[in-house]
Amino acid sequence: MVALRRAAGEVGRSVAVHTRARPAQPQLHPNPWDTYHHTVIEPRRRLGLDAVRRGMERGEIRDDLDVELVGDLFTGPLLIRTVIRPGATLEPGLAERIVDTVLEGLRPRT
Amino acid sequence: MVALRRAAGEVGRSVAVHTRARPAQPQLHPNPWDTYHHTVIEPRRRLGLDAVRRGMERGEIRDDLDVELVGDLFTGPLLIRTVIRPGATLEPGLAERIVDTVLEGLRPRT
Repeated sequence: MVALRRAAGEVGRSVAVHTRARPAQPQLHPNPWDTYHHTVIEPRRRLGLDAVRRGMERGEIRDDLDVELVGDLFTGPLLIRTVIRPGATLEPGLAERIVDTVLEGLRPRT
Repeated sequence: MVALRRAAGEVGRSVAVHTRARPAQPQLHPNPWDTYHHTVIEPRRRLGLDAVRRGMERGEIRDDLDVELVGDLFTGPLLIRTVIRPGATLEPGLAERIVDTVLEGLRPRT
């Protein structure tokens, strides 16, 4: 589980940081954006999805869920801060906090 | 809980759809991007955060978590599909599926 948190955190942070540094006008230059997507985003995304699959195989993550959806649950909350709210913080420990909260769920513990 | 799911789903979908339709070169025109952020993104974000607070008050969501982080857990997974993977689907029921999964958590049920 520690390995999963570390992997998910690193992949999420890596995608987030690289996304913040992406070319400023991707829509004007479809080829550089495609290139960036294939060389930067997709490899990291695959690492994240592999970590999710391993977590399912090890019984650390529910295996009744779509792998891609689970991946988005881990990385989406980080990316929203870089792409939609550029001023938002990416403080140390944020990725781990997201992973822990998504694993645990938001329902109150009774 | 039904109201919460509907509110979260509508806000998330609304932000996602509007984000897809955002100006193509926000970084080149900081003022239009600021205007867009204040008039389109922020009001919807506030609606989502209000829904999270109501859920916490009603005991439907854990109240030991940061409201903004919880908001990002609901909307991030939708937004990642529109901003980072423009070809990804936003199929009917996706927002509700994200809300249900985040509420329930990813740990296997024993």
